Amino acid sequence: MDTNQSLGCRELIVSLEDRSYPIWIGSGLLPRLSALLLERGISNGSPLLLVSDEQVAKHHLATVQQALQEGGYNTVVHIVPSGESSKSLTHYEACMTTAIEAGLDRKSTVLALGGGVVGDLAGFVAATYMRGVKFIQLPTTILAHDSSVGGKVAVNHALAKNMIGAFHQPEAVIFDLETLHTLPIREVRAGLAEMIKHGLIWDEAFSDWCLEHADDLVALDQAKLAYGIYMGCNVKAQVVSKDEREQNLRAILNLGHTIGHALEAVGQYGELLHGEAISIGMVGSAELAVLLGEDSQLVTYTRRILEAFGLPTSIPSHYDTDAILSAMMHDKKFSGGRTTFVIPTAVGQVDIRHDISIELVRSVVDKLKGESA
Amino acid sequence: MDTNQSLGCRELIVSLEDRSYPIWIGSGLLPRLSALLLERGISNGSPLLLVSDEQVAKHHLATVQQALQEGGYNTVVHIVPSGESSKSLTHYEACMTTAIEAGLDRKSTVLALGGGVVGDLAGFVAATYMRGVKFIQLPTTILAHDSSVGGKVAVNHALAKNMIGAFHQPEAVIFDLETLHTLPIREVRAGLAEMIKHGLIWDEAFSDWCLEHADDLVALDQAKLAYGIYMGCNVKAQVVSKDEREQNLRAILNLGHTIGHALEAVGQYGELLHGEAISIGMVGSAELAVLLGEDSQLVTYTRRILEAFGLPTSIPSHYDTDAILSAMMHDKKFSGGRTTFVIPTAVGQVDIRHDISIELVRSVVDKLKGESA
Ligand SMILES: NC(=O)c1ccc[n+]([C@@H]2O[C@H](COP(=O)([O-])OP(=O)(O)OC[C@H]3O[C@@H](n4cnc5c(N)ncnc54)[C@H](O)[C@@H]3O)[C@@H](O)[C@H]2O)c1
Ligand SMILES: NC(=O)c1ccc[n+]([C@@H]2O[C@H](COP(=O)([O-])OP(=O)(O)OC[C@H]3O[C@@H](n4cnc5c(N)ncnc54)[C@H](O)[C@@H]3O)[C@@H](O)[C@H]2O)c1
Ligand SMILES: [Zn+2]
Ligand SMILES: [Zn+2]
Repeated sequence: MDTNQSLGCRELIVSLEDRSYPIWIGSGLLPRLSALLLERGISNGSPLLLVSDEQVAKHHLATVQQALQEGGYNTVVHIVPSGESSKSLTHYEACMTTAIEAGLDRKSTVLALGGGVVGDLAGFVAATYMRGVKFIQLPTTILAHDSSVGGKVAVNHALAKNMIGAFHQPEAVIFDLETLHTLPIREVRAGLAEMIKHGLIWDEAFSDWCLEHADDLVALDQAKLAYGIYMGCNVKAQVVSKDEREQNLRAILNLGHTIGHALEAVGQYGELLHGEAISIGMVGSAELAVLLGEDSQLVTYTRRILEAFGLPTSIPSHYDTDAILSAMMHDKKFSGGRTTFVIPTAVGQVDIRHDISIELVRSVVDKLKGESA
Repeated sequence: MDTNQSLGCRELIVSLEDRSYPIWIGSGLLPRLSALLLERGISNGSPLLLVSDEQVAKHHLATVQQALQEGGYNTVVHIVPSGESSKSLTHYEACMTTAIEAGLDRKSTVLALGGGVVGDLAGFVAATYMRGVKFIQLPTTILAHDSSVGGKVAVNHALAKNMIGAFHQPEAVIFDLETLHTLPIREVRAGLAEMIKHGLIWDEAFSDWCLEHADDLVALDQAKLAYGIYMGCNVKAQVVSKDEREQNLRAILNLGHTIGHALEAVGQYGELLHGEAISIGMVGSAELAVLLGEDSQLVTYTRRILEAFGLPTSIPSHYDTDAILSAMMHDKKFSGGRTTFVIPTAVGQVDIRHDISIELVRSVVDKLKGESA
């Protein structure tokens, strides 16, 4: 059952025993926020902390505040600057100060209104305020269909991303697709890259569906988006339910990420968005697969679907191959010159290979650069 | 079975399903640390982070380092200043920096060598480094028999103590009683106050045993200490096993703490040690019990046992009653003028009462002050 009649939206239950929770996806959910919180047992007896960023707040804070006020919720708002730099211990401490000053107690709830940055920051606050309080995600980016499922929350350390964090599952993810209308188009496409990834690793039919409806999705057709985000969350939720603490299976979610992370680093985390970088990385994984003996149709298909969404499929020519490889070796351990890679074996299927040599990766990187020369 | 023959020490298993772990208590355990780590599956394949404070390091770091070196462990050491002010986000971040620079990975382990301050700080680092790594406690104070059991880890916020933290169970607590010989005598007595508390809330026979062996315990008789700490940990572990996430039963561990915390605050966290403050608080709880109709022998017994350990039983006369009451109201919610208190009903038994009026507490505070006039 993927719709909740009484709530009038799509519903997906993430099954994690006593930490199971629903993801609600639909248009116009934020104005009904109070009712949805009550549905999850969040009463107005204790103050709430709402964390958001400047861009998101400009467009959507008023709606949320009004909805909370109608429900009689006593809410304190903490706004951080937009962008990755807000995922820091400094902003984390500032959130804590706001929470303490507002008298949040152990029965309070932290709400994240925003993309992955706000979700990760506010989630880590929720995980550790008084040793853990309730947490609700209100995603406003397409990428956040990925980041809001799985319970990973974190801030960055000056020396490395996502180094400081916890696993903390939300009480609910409430995804109002209306908020996406104000999202910059580059962010839309980049977020869709993770949706495509979810098809490529797990579900050929969904992947084909994405390819077929690329234009509608980029144009934010609400019904198509509701289905696509539902399916994307569903793949992630299934993988996470089977491997909550990231022991093994969860690694398949990293398709395209080994090369992708290296490209983000070489571009100083400013040139390429995460989704753009993994788009190129997914082509790289397909190229690797073909070098390892898989059908060359894998590359053709991967390129076709990403291009349909206007996503990049080759490495910018000014990116230095050695710099990319050394960023990758910094990120991943190449022990004995070999490392782990997620490799497609068919559309909707991947394998985790531990024997990928640095030379093979180099030839793929060269290939991906050649295309853009 | 409370001894582990092959390890040659007392052993207590804290039962928490898949997070169960042993507490090993004995003399001369630190020189054998490598063998004990191996016993818990801590291999020397990944670097360790050892956190300690200046005082503790001066006396005991060399022993630990030599033991780890013999086991082939690659260890990075992070030393913080002694005292409560090291339980801060600033020192937490510095620990993280040390860990990242030393290349700690997800299979690494954090060790805490010290009292409750180092245990709480290092434990929070372990709980959140890369979303959680393994943690080992090496307690060096008597109080740490309390703080090292239960999985509560935290740092302080400038506005309030223990506000930022997590629940993170250790892989093992390795309590080498030899380290206690360098502990200042005031700290010895204060730590014993928590041991006495464990008798008073749970086990009359153990309480009587403490009273009988007060002098031996204060003199750090190793066999008596081993038994006392074993029994103290045992009470805490039983309570915690039944209520890991602090839903209800765990509240009984707060005997003496409502008044105690207020006294610490009024003394600006410098005049009274925590154990001294709760010593006075436990007398207060007994006085409250008598006002509520319990036998006055409760007060006599409570005073007698605390005095046998040289612990304070009355409020310093320069502490202002109103200041104490307002600190308490800041700490606890008096809703409708009533609050929750742990009240003894017999030696080894307590009740949680939610109907204690502020007037009743005031009369007890006055009584405790009168004694010191
Ligand atoms: N926790 C996880 O499992 C997980 C998974 C993937 C990514 N992440 C994290 O997510 C982060 C990236 O998330 P993101 O791409 O959502 O970035 P983001 O939160 O920074 O949002 C991207 C930009 O869009 C703006 N924005 C967001 N919603 C908007 C809206 N509706 N209208 C107008 N502007 C809007 C933001 O202000 C920001 O400038 C990274 O920090 C990454 O590490 C976490
Ligand atoms: N996590 C929990 O469940 C829990 C429970 C109770 C208390 N606590 C926390 O524990 C802390 C208090 O612990 P504590 O009383 O052990 O304080 P502590 O760690 O500060 O140690 C007390 C003093 O003794 C010194 N010291 C410690 N061991 C020594 C040794 N063997 N030789 C010489 N000097 C030594 C320390 O340097 C310090 O100056 C507080 O922060 C409190 O919040 C936590
Ligand atoms: Zn990603
Ligand atoms: Zn205490």
